[in-house]
Amino acid sequence: MAKIKKTPRPKAETPKGFRDYFGAEVTERAEMLARIAGVYHRYGFDALESAAVETVEALGKFLPDVERPNEGVFAWQEGEEEGKGDWLALRYDLTAPLARVYAQHRNDLPTPYRRYAMGPVWRNEKPGPGRYRQFYQCDADTVGSASPAADAETCAMLADCLEEVGIPRGDYLIRVNNRKVLNGVLEAMGVTDAAQAADVLRTIDKFDKVGEAGVRELLGKGRLDASGAYIDGVGLSDAQIEIVVGFLTSNLIVEEELRNGPPEPDGRIPGGMGETISGQPEATEHDGRVWNWAILDHLMRLVGSTEIGFQGIKELGEISDLLAAQGYGPDRITIDPSVVRGLGYYTGPVFEAELTFEILDEKGRKRQFGSVAGGGRYDDLVKRFTGQEVPATGVSIGVDRLLAALREKGRVGGTESGPVVVTVMDRDRMADYMGMVSEIRAAGLRAEVYLGNPKNFGNQLKYADKRGSPAAVIEGDDEKARGVVQIKDLILGARIAENATLEEWKERPSQFEVPRDQLVAKLREILAGQG
Amino acid sequence: MAKIKKTPRPKAETPKGFRDYFGAEVTERAEMLARIAGVYHRYGFDALESAAVETVEALGKFLPDVERPNEGVFAWQEGEEEGKGDWLALRYDLTAPLARVYAQHRNDLPTPYRRYAMGPVWRNEKPGPGRYRQFYQCDADTVGSASPAADAETCAMLADCLEEVGIPRGDYLIRVNNRKVLNGVLEAMGVTDAAQAADVLRTIDKFDKVGEAGVRELLGKGRLDASGAYIDGVGLSDAQIEIVVGFLTSNLIVEEELRNGPPEPDGRIPGGMGETISGQPEATEHDGRVWNWAILDHLMRLVGSTEIGFQGIKELGEISDLLAAQGYGPDRITIDPSVVRGLGYYTGPVFEAELTFEILDEKGRKRQFGSVAGGGRYDDLVKRFTGQEVPATGVSIGVDRLLAALREKGRVGGTESGPVVVTVMDRDRMADYMGMVSEIRAAGLRAEVYLGNPKNFGNQLKYADKRGSPAAVIEGDDEKARGVVQIKDLILGARIAENATLEEWKERPSQFEVPRDQLVAKLREILAGQG
Repeated sequence: MAKIKKTPRPKAETPKGFRDYFGAEVTERAEMLARIAGVYHRYGFDALESAAVETVEALGKFLPDVERPNEGVFAWQEGEEEGKGDWLALRYDLTAPLARVYAQHRNDLPTPYRRYAMGPVWRNEKPGPGRYRQFYQCDADTVGSASPAADAETCAMLADCLEEVGIPRGDYLIRVNNRKVLNGVLEAMGVTDAAQAADVLRTIDKFDKVGEAGVRELLGKGRLDASGAYIDGVGLSDAQIEIVVGFLTSNLIVEEELRNGPPEPDGRIPGGMGETISGQPEATEHDGRVWNWAILDHLMRLVGSTEIGFQGIKELGEISDLLAAQGYGPDRITIDPSVVRGLGYYTGPVFEAELTFEILDEKGRKRQFGSVAGGGRYDDLVKRFTGQEVPATGVSIGVDRLLAALREKGRVGGTESGPVVVTVMDRDRMADYMGMVSEIRAAGLRAEVYLGNPKNFGNQLKYADKRGSPAAVIEGDDEKARGVVQIKDLILGARIAENATLEEWKERPSQFEVPRDQLVAKLREILAGQG
Repeated sequence: MAKIKKTPRPKAETPKGFRDYFGAEVTERAEMLARIAGVYHRYGFDALESAAVETVEALGKFLPDVERPNEGVFAWQEGEEEGKGDWLALRYDLTAPLARVYAQHRNDLPTPYRRYAMGPVWRNEKPGPGRYRQFYQCDADTVGSASPAADAETCAMLADCLEEVGIPRGDYLIRVNNRKVLNGVLEAMGVTDAAQAADVLRTIDKFDKVGEAGVRELLGKGRLDASGAYIDGVGLSDAQIEIVVGFLTSNLIVEEELRNGPPEPDGRIPGGMGETISGQPEATEHDGRVWNWAILDHLMRLVGSTEIGFQGIKELGEISDLLAAQGYGPDRITIDPSVVRGLGYYTGPVFEAELTFEILDEKGRKRQFGSVAGGGRYDDLVKRFTGQEVPATGVSIGVDRLLAALREKGRVGGTESGPVVVTVMDRDRMADYMGMVSEIRAAGLRAEVYLGNPKNFGNQLKYADKRGSPAAVIEGDDEKARGVVQIKDLILGARIAENATLEEWKERPSQFEVPRDQLVAKLREILAGQG
């Protein structure tokens, strides 16, 4: 800690877009992260903690010839003199640092390298309501495995994590797609121009917002925006548009088909699926093999003729097979072609975990809670450093959103209790009071002596209230002389003050006098009674 | 994750002075921090997590008129255009952010506000061996209490923390001093010039390095440095120097005095001490009251005539009394006038926790492990923001040094085990192997399927070795047909390979064949046998 120079009085403010987290906000997040880490660890992943600071070069998000590469990240230049040192930046996610770590230490690390990481990341973006420039991520990745088993396992682990932290089965759904299927769609449409392909992908990504009709307009001639602006269309033919829409609405189409009974297996589905569903599967709503078979069958009809599409469907078949073998049915993990996340980044299977229960939004309207985690396969990130292709797949959990969901469901919160407060009736007997808290703490209870100015006793009880203390202990001269202490049950006291009639008040006192040597026993009893 | 632009291949390196932490390095630190947080919490402290980023103005270390205020911290300027936005910086400790938090939220926070915080801090300093630019701190502070009871409690809590994480009593010592006593020394010497006072304090701070003779030279005419350079002296008189040396060597002097029996209490010691040591205390080595009384008596003779010195001794007396009442004797917490840490910053009691066991340094010489935590009272930090004096006291634990000490003592490490590895004998039966790990994990054991290329079976076992796996599971076609699995005890296997004679090898096989349905039971047995 350096000397504080005399300066005009500084503003006591967090920088814009940053915030402080207090008490239970911190401990509940830590508890949730510890549970997730436990699942990751049981799955065989090892912890990794890299520094918050990376070179801009290693993060790889920016051109080196930009004079001030601080868009999107917090970046600065090293060294005394301008223009001489390396550009450094705060990490904006945990995946880019992983690629750097693996490339740097690959000779010492096992292959595959399976690591989990958790911690804050930083984005130099415009902050908004509930949108901060520092937030937590919690990732697990497998680097060096091309096997769809690694993707399948990541999805299974994600389901386990959600259940472990308190999201019950039925309240979440992990939707899986494959980037290669998407590329197959483009190929089947005959879109070869890179710019046009990018336009199509951007439009597909808007499906959730604008719906089928909107996508049709945007892919065709264009669309009048809600704001009144006219958005130019991609200019595809009706036949091309039909392929995209058929792809995006796969689930609806297949649902309709399944109402007429399970489809006849015709041996066209590649991969493991073909083997496991060799007979006629029974059509029950929750039979994952039928559902997945039907979806894959549908995708085969759409893009099975393209090599990349066929490969994507094959991988989805393997993933779905492996998950079925472990008992993860489509009530938990399902193939869903409308998942199109992270378009520029993923190279194979992609997945997204959504919470399906409804909450009220700011305007009081019901809506699904939505996405809390996502991930997929990214085979090119390590290659940036080494030139060699290193296949990788992983998941990132949006810690703060998941925590908000748990609060919404009442799965966290309300359990943090303040300390028992030993009040100071006689300033000269501080040693007695300190001895008392030592005794209470030794019994495993949370406790403290009031350390503010003890002159005004009311302030001491106000302090205990503000701390959410379960009880206050009082030992004045009179009590000391008689060998007793007074204990105030502050939770009961508050309840009585709120609701009680005079009779109840008298019958259920919230203050107890006990012999000094029964202090801890009585506190235990009171705390147990409060639940 | 944004698109990766095509650029020349980036270097896969951490920035200078930063490092990555792997596996047990991460989990052991997390475990230690959780234990410390448990103690802080039991003492009534609430968690606080502020952002890594603060305004340079709030951090308060730098002049606002410096053009590029990035000395000592990592700082950058906000906004698109140079010279327009706020200067932001990574926090360099957890105390400066606490002062900002308290000033910002003081109307909502209880008073006293007691918080703990843990997390990385950043220093833009030249890195050295074992000296990194990002490291962890773990602090607890009480803001808004002027009571020496708050200081005493902080010391007691620090002792509890050290024992909780595994430093046994006798292996640590918390030494307490008071900045006011130091100011009393300056006053008793007649040093009133601020520059000369700063010189004296700087010299006192060198006592540990240069010893008594060195301090005498530096305070007087000057001293020939080890490097051959001549250091100018402060130019004090012999009488003045005698006061400083008498102060710095208080402990030696008092030890000598106590060999002649306990001193006669003469009522000169102020504060609680006067009352508790009213009779003739017995002189045993571990009798804290005698030791502390004798030290305070000695300080009274040196600086008791100055108002500030008297005040400092009175506070030390109260602290020592409160600690004695809770059973923290001088074998754990002791008054030691040679503690002179954080000269520019602290305003009252200061303390430092040292580990007293010996380790070998880089050159193989024995030395004490040294300081792992420190703190004290700083009454002016919040005032910077609000103009109102807010007394505060707290402690900061040097997480990485403490962890290194625990490793040195064998109190952490060696417990992290790799996952059971289920090998892949038949690529087409991946679903079977995945089902197997599900089963093993459901039993609470750490497990994974080998996800690399399964072609070379030797690579699978090498992988398991590299992961520190306790066992590998093998199920080929033959085993599958016979309804059995092979389990390799990798720890036993390695031990046998190292030491065993051929006879032992035969008698204690490290590979077992068990029926498939006894897989989990046998794994449990093997892992239990490994301890």
